[in-house]
Amino acid sequence: MLHRHGGPLLSTLLVHSGTLVRMDAARTVGRGDVLVRDGRIAALGDVSAALAALPGGRADEVFDASGCFVLPGFVHGHVHLCQTLFRGLAEQADLLEWLTRRIWPLEAAHTEASLAASARLGLAELIAGGVTCVNDMGTVHHTDAVGAALEESGLRAVFGKALMDEGEGVPPALAEPAREAIREADALAARWHGAAGGRLRVSVAPRFILSCSAPLWREAVALAEARGLMLHTHLAEAPSEGAAVQAATGTTAARWFHAHGVLSERFVGAHGVWLDAEELYLLRAADAALVHCPGANLKLGSGFARVRAWRDAGLRCGLGADGPPCNNRLDTFHEMSLAAGLSRALDRERHLPAREVLALATCEGARALGLGDETGSLETGKAADLAVVRHDLAHHGPQPAADPYATIVHACRADDVRLTVCAGRVLWRDGAHATLDAPRAVSDARLEALALVRRAEARGLA
Amino acid sequence: MLHRHGGPLLSTLLVHSGTLVRMDAARTVGRGDVLVRDGRIAALGDVSAALAALPGGRADEVFDASGCFVLPGFVHGHVHLCQTLFRGLAEQADLLEWLTRRIWPLEAAHTEASLAASARLGLAELIAGGVTCVNDMGTVHHTDAVGAALEESGLRAVFGKALMDEGEGVPPALAEPAREAIREADALAARWHGAAGGRLRVSVAPRFILSCSAPLWREAVALAEARGLMLHTHLAEAPSEGAAVQAATGTTAARWFHAHGVLSERFVGAHGVWLDAEELYLLRAADAALVHCPGANLKLGSGFARVRAWRDAGLRCGLGADGPPCNNRLDTFHEMSLAAGLSRALDRERHLPAREVLALATCEGARALGLGDETGSLETGKAADLAVVRHDLAHHGPQPAADPYATIVHACRADDVRLTVCAGRVLWRDGAHATLDAPRAVSDARLEALALVRRAEARGLA
Repeated sequence: MLHRHGGPLLSTLLVHSGTLVRMDAARTVGRGDVLVRDGRIAALGDVSAALAALPGGRADEVFDASGCFVLPGFVHGHVHLCQTLFRGLAEQADLLEWLTRRIWPLEAAHTEASLAASARLGLAELIAGGVTCVNDMGTVHHTDAVGAALEESGLRAVFGKALMDEGEGVPPALAEPAREAIREADALAARWHGAAGGRLRVSVAPRFILSCSAPLWREAVALAEARGLMLHTHLAEAPSEGAAVQAATGTTAARWFHAHGVLSERFVGAHGVWLDAEELYLLRAADAALVHCPGANLKLGSGFARVRAWRDAGLRCGLGADGPPCNNRLDTFHEMSLAAGLSRALDRERHLPAREVLALATCEGARALGLGDETGSLETGKAADLAVVRHDLAHHGPQPAADPYATIVHACRADDVRLTVCAGRVLWRDGAHATLDAPRAVSDARLEALALVRRAEARGLA
Repeated sequence: MLHRHGGPLLSTLLVHSGTLVRMDAARTVGRGDVLVRDGRIAALGDVSAALAALPGGRADEVFDASGCFVLPGFVHGHVHLCQTLFRGLAEQADLLEWLTRRIWPLEAAHTEASLAASARLGLAELIAGGVTCVNDMGTVHHTDAVGAALEESGLRAVFGKALMDEGEGVPPALAEPAREAIREADALAARWHGAAGGRLRVSVAPRFILSCSAPLWREAVALAEARGLMLHTHLAEAPSEGAAVQAATGTTAARWFHAHGVLSERFVGAHGVWLDAEELYLLRAADAALVHCPGANLKLGSGFARVRAWRDAGLRCGLGADGPPCNNRLDTFHEMSLAAGLSRALDRERHLPAREVLALATCEGARALGLGDETGSLETGKAADLAVVRHDLAHHGPQPAADPYATIVHACRADDVRLTVCAGRVLWRDGAHATLDAPRAVSDARLEALALVRRAEARGLA
């Protein structure tokens, strides 16, 4: 498979002289090279034999990773690209207030053009930060615009349209009849699931328990099973939400999901801050996965997720930033640092070590999305999804390689990413995007955000 | 006062077309220029009249701050430059274990050269991140090397040598007789207090209650009063420390300080995680100040400081990163984001808004160090200490100026700093240091760290 990268056709890429932090089962770390061919990792470590076998004995493109770590590209387990346009415009510190007063009215004002601008702005940040795979929950309408932006960006993604058919504070423009919602989700999957050479997958994405009727949940589960799709939702995020769920269902979201057959190995639930031990057992018994979003949990005042307990329960787990209005960044390094620090503050004796935190952002995150065989570690035959992260600046010194995991999780920053490669294609190299026009994404987003806010205000947004 | 900046002599600097986030009493925000003359802010906002009055009607140096915020330079309220060399080499998650097993043995192995390298590495990171003032606690010996590095760097600083004369786990090389410790501190003050045109101040820095005898505390307080110096120490940081303090003194550090006359308007105490309401009252009654170090508190598993309660009690408060081995970064943006997020998670209804968090890192932080009249806000006549922070990239969009405080605290990053100016002198401009040779600082630090670890291991470091 040849692909276009800012001009010449490429099929091979050599990333050499870096420290490979492979995140394979053995957690191998060591100096070496990575040879990429046809979108996959062709050889690792000593690649000289594989390189010699190439036509002309050399790769089409070469990147010198001296002074850098070479990592699997980050898997961002829970994001809302549709909300990038609302960054800084929703500073409420409570989930339900934030949703009903700002986020939903703003989402209801999206057009196809504003959604595309929102997605591109978010993707520019994610790619520059070493992310190669996202699990995106969209809004209700225009989700094809997200698919097109993802395809154009070169990123790997699972994405879905938000399903909402009821709920307090849901604007009429976002509430669809269950049947229509499911029909749209099914059509989205028909168009996009497996597209872009398999980089794109579609999920069924009922937003959360308070915005979806029981029939919608039933149909969503049936669609996910019939089509072989992930089911992506939120649960147990905030105290206000927990109280409302209790009032609406008489129980908790996880128990309701269990009772209604929602939990399965297809289930990816974001947040899970307030899950108790029994709920973790129910999730584990169904082989469901959770995604930790520490930055959003802090900013919305949702609380502290007990990720150590998730891991002890044997759950598959990922890490995500959630949406830019509740964070306000899409920065895996920020989330890793928070995940590590919060876990130490909550349980000093049994915290998540840096190595385990990096796993959440790579191999474990991929497993949580059902993509563990395809991405999340540097291994021969896997997709060539990788990030090259420098460790030679003042803020890394003096001995960044003495404990690569500590350096990556506690000292490295998004701006240390020198190269992002997805499916063998260079998306970001030394400050420049190869697939996106970032300055244009910024200016388009500014104009679209101004117009969107005007539309929302015309409908009564406070 | 003319000073050399990478070549030509300069006396005036114009920073124009930015959004000024002044952090004055009225918290003024708005477009405008800053004219710097002879190390001070000569004019703000509309500077045309002041500019016209300059010889030739123009400034010697000009910086276009379009697409940027212009802020007071950050005041970093608690750091250990002597520990930069240990970053990544001390990953224990408990204060006392971390101190006794790693930090003290490593500090004991410092030479004058390794201490200078450690300070320069930390200063390179701080300056690149927009910091213009630090409150540094040094190690026991060679503190002149820190003074020389600070003078060379151009930064404003309060710094002191750590006072330690007893304590479990204190290496003999770090325990000085009280009289000798005080004599050294006094001599340090004689050499450096008021040096570099007033940029440098010396503090008396008894390390913490467990490393200082009652006579040393008494002498330290007397020296601070006699010389007019700040008294910089740690208190109520970690559960293990609290238990040891209780065992040693029969009470808590703050109560012991109160009973022994240690608390005053000269007192700056770092951490304060475990202070109760009565202790906050004692601190407030003495007009003592506290410095919040959220990143270190997370990484060492120390706990969550109740900064909302500090503020409600009327305490002067700053923000700091603490040392690179317990963080592992010296990044004001990281600490601001943590301070804001943790406060929301701890008390959603009464959290620290972004504006108040930025105040901790600027004007309030300066007040905590007794420097409120000199730095911490953009006001005519104050020292020209400022940072220019861009907000025009993908990770800031789409409307960074809609809520500048939210953008700065929740979205901006250390690498967004384009210009750092201290006392009118440019220290950092668009990726380049003007006073420090950063690549050399990194390579020197690497060599010095390797030799230092070897020395520490020769003495039995595990």
